[in-house]
Amino acid sequence: VAERARQSPFPMLPVQEAIKIVLEQAKSVGEEQTKNLLDAHGRVLASDVYATDPVPPFPASIKDGYAVVAADGPGKRSVIGPITAGDMSDVRVKPGCIARISTGAVVPEGADAVVQVEDTELFQSSDEGAVELSVKILSEPKVGQDIRPVGFDIKAGEKVLSANDYIGSAELGILATVGCTSVKVYKSPLIAICSTGNEVCDPGVPLGVGQIRDSNRFSIISLLKSEGFETVDMGIIRDSPDEVSMKFKELLSKFDVIVTSGGVSMGEKDYLKGVLRGVLDATIHFGRVFMKPGKPTTFATASFNGKTKLIFCLPGNPVSAVVTCHLFVIPALRKMAGYSRPQASIVKAKLGFGINLDARPEYHRTVLSWPSQENLPIASTTGSQCSSRITSMRSANALLMLPPKQDNLKRLEIGSIVDALMIHKL
Amino acid sequence: VAERARQSPFPMLPVQEAIKIVLEQAKSVGEEQTKNLLDAHGRVLASDVYATDPVPPFPASIKDGYAVVAADGPGKRSVIGPITAGDMSDVRVKPGCIARISTGAVVPEGADAVVQVEDTELFQSSDEGAVELSVKILSEPKVGQDIRPVGFDIKAGEKVLSANDYIGSAELGILATVGCTSVKVYKSPLIAICSTGNEVCDPGVPLGVGQIRDSNRFSIISLLKSEGFETVDMGIIRDSPDEVSMKFKELLSKFDVIVTSGGVSMGEKDYLKGVLRGVLDATIHFGRVFMKPGKPTTFATASFNGKTKLIFCLPGNPVSAVVTCHLFVIPALRKMAGYSRPQASIVKAKLGFGINLDARPEYHRTVLSWPSQENLPIASTTGSQCSSRITSMRSANALLMLPPKQDNLKRLEIGSIVDALMIHKL
Ligand SMILES: [Mg+2]
Ligand SMILES: [Mg+2]
Repeated sequence: VAERARQSPFPMLPVQEAIKIVLEQAKSVGEEQTKNLLDAHGRVLASDVYATDPVPPFPASIKDGYAVVAADGPGKRSVIGPITAGDMSDVRVKPGCIARISTGAVVPEGADAVVQVEDTELFQSSDEGAVELSVKILSEPKVGQDIRPVGFDIKAGEKVLSANDYIGSAELGILATVGCTSVKVYKSPLIAICSTGNEVCDPGVPLGVGQIRDSNRFSIISLLKSEGFETVDMGIIRDSPDEVSMKFKELLSKFDVIVTSGGVSMGEKDYLKGVLRGVLDATIHFGRVFMKPGKPTTFATASFNGKTKLIFCLPGNPVSAVVTCHLFVIPALRKMAGYSRPQASIVKAKLGFGINLDARPEYHRTVLSWPSQENLPIASTTGSQCSSRITSMRSANALLMLPPKQDNLKRLEIGSIVDALMIHKL
Repeated sequence: VAERARQSPFPMLPVQEAIKIVLEQAKSVGEEQTKNLLDAHGRVLASDVYATDPVPPFPASIKDGYAVVAADGPGKRSVIGPITAGDMSDVRVKPGCIARISTGAVVPEGADAVVQVEDTELFQSSDEGAVELSVKILSEPKVGQDIRPVGFDIKAGEKVLSANDYIGSAELGILATVGCTSVKVYKSPLIAICSTGNEVCDPGVPLGVGQIRDSNRFSIISLLKSEGFETVDMGIIRDSPDEVSMKFKELLSKFDVIVTSGGVSMGEKDYLKGVLRGVLDATIHFGRVFMKPGKPTTFATASFNGKTKLIFCLPGNPVSAVVTCHLFVIPALRKMAGYSRPQASIVKAKLGFGINLDARPEYHRTVLSWPSQENLPIASTTGSQCSSRITSMRSANALLMLPPKQDNLKRLEIGSIVDALMIHKL
């Protein structure tokens, strides 16, 4: 203990460099076929999707009205039909005749336009109004009017979705439309979540002396869940080199990605880096990052059975753990899951408060709101940004990316425009 | 049929008025207690949450270093301890002594400051460096330095979350921190999803003559899922007044909210409005909305066993169904589920294309992107906005809210600033 290093041996990497390293290591864990269409929701396509047949597969009426011969023009016509959507009718329209037709129904042979019901008038009926005999067409029909020809929306053979497209509700609707009910998607990585420390206890048990409740597992599990990633809660690892090694060996054998928090700082019970290097033969890609919060963030890879496993050892402070999970873990998981754009969107926001800059780039938790009279969103602070203060994450939908203090820039005034990394659905 | 109205009897409501009516009818379906903490994720709090004890519950060291008596100043000190996080030690620090301490550990009695290890130097050790005997303090400690006092992050009795707060990962972390493992949340409404029409078939079966594949159930089920709402797929209702009435009676007895698509236009097989009014004694609050797409959107309520059920009959065209689901169904569900802000965020965007305005307010599907050199997001079009063209929803993350055509405003040029309703996570 006495002879330990009193300064961290790890250089402080710039955030962008650290993200680059993480994304280089994050690779797909394979592909699989979904069993039914709805299982594909929230996954990422592993191959392009083509339409096998056209949409619509027949000339379809766009309106409720009458299928007509356009050349007949306006005037009184005798009515045949009806042709409603889903009918397999063999009605033919001859000049001088019209067929009553519903939206989505097959436009019958002979007809080359549809006139909407609003542009017609009843002329003659029978059976006390039950049967239309003749109707007056009031407007001049144009050839093709209110008809969707075959393949109007999607052509046969058209590529409708591309590999690496995220499958949201729109894409799922497209898959249904083209009848693609079984889809090749990227596998989701298997992810383990742990906390570390002798001081942390489960939130449901009474606090002992010197103890605090573990929140990191809950924040991280639910954060990854809201990003579409299922995880396994692997509990709390106590501060002993043996327990840390044993647990990590188990995790490496079962998971593709390990996310822990705590145990990576300069304390004498911070065993993670030592075990990673000394016992697990892992490569520590970085052990510190030039940012606030999140300085001790550590990223390593280790080989197990020929596979490269990703190990994120996040800082133990609750805010640091969540902020670094957003910046490093989520982009890695999104890349592994096939996303073409793994990083969160960055928008411009106007500071609703003034702030003194820190020596390190700071990720300030903020609530962005869009007042209707403003062009840019207004960023309000969530209060004291101490990294232990988990309530500073409350309701936050973005992280303001504040630049580090410079000789000529020590403070940003209210109204300044800054970048904001989106961390929550708007 | 002959004597039917040739113009819709329903007035076209402005969108804002229609939304207001929907939100007035949408009420909470009750409260429940979650069984474990992670079950609360994605739900909305039904009551305020208070901290029962302070965080931290003891004066905690912010750094790895030494607990000191500040008045001692810098200099050589003999070392006691160590005190690591989670220790239940009864170490006392006397003037002239210091205690080695880890981040998160209890600051011992007698000490009133912590000096980080980086600001110290080893002076004397024993047992070949295993034991620190004395250490030099290099900096001048200030009283309270690097100590989080009791209650620094959260005070005992402090309100940490409020009723109607959405429980995301940050809020779940806060609940864990204060030991609130069972939470009162709003119940989720029971929601049925149906398509209607003789022409629609399941995506997995071969297309018959005049048929198209049903995509609306899949789009809507997955859209509501991505908004956190579980639904029940109640299949396809065929175009017969008897089947429509029977099915609706079943749905009203089992669900709080019914969402259908199709069957609400002017066609002779559009039975929904007639059944709602004639058979189910429902109140049709509106039967048309002044918007594009989505004009035939119908909203009704019906009473069943003393409870008011919400019935959304969306248009059948795939894009119209999804757009109106965003505008009317999701805000209603969010209000029922307890959200304080049920409507989607509206941001400002710069048109990346020019467009002729429609007579109706148009909801143009767009992909917003934030190029780093621009302050506002740039809106790109998803192509032809025909309401049957489901591929116009592909990758869309917002709906541009284009104003209706006016005598003095017939077109918006590239670069114009417009409102955009966010429909997807950024
Ligand atoms: Mg620790
Ligand atoms: Mg129909």
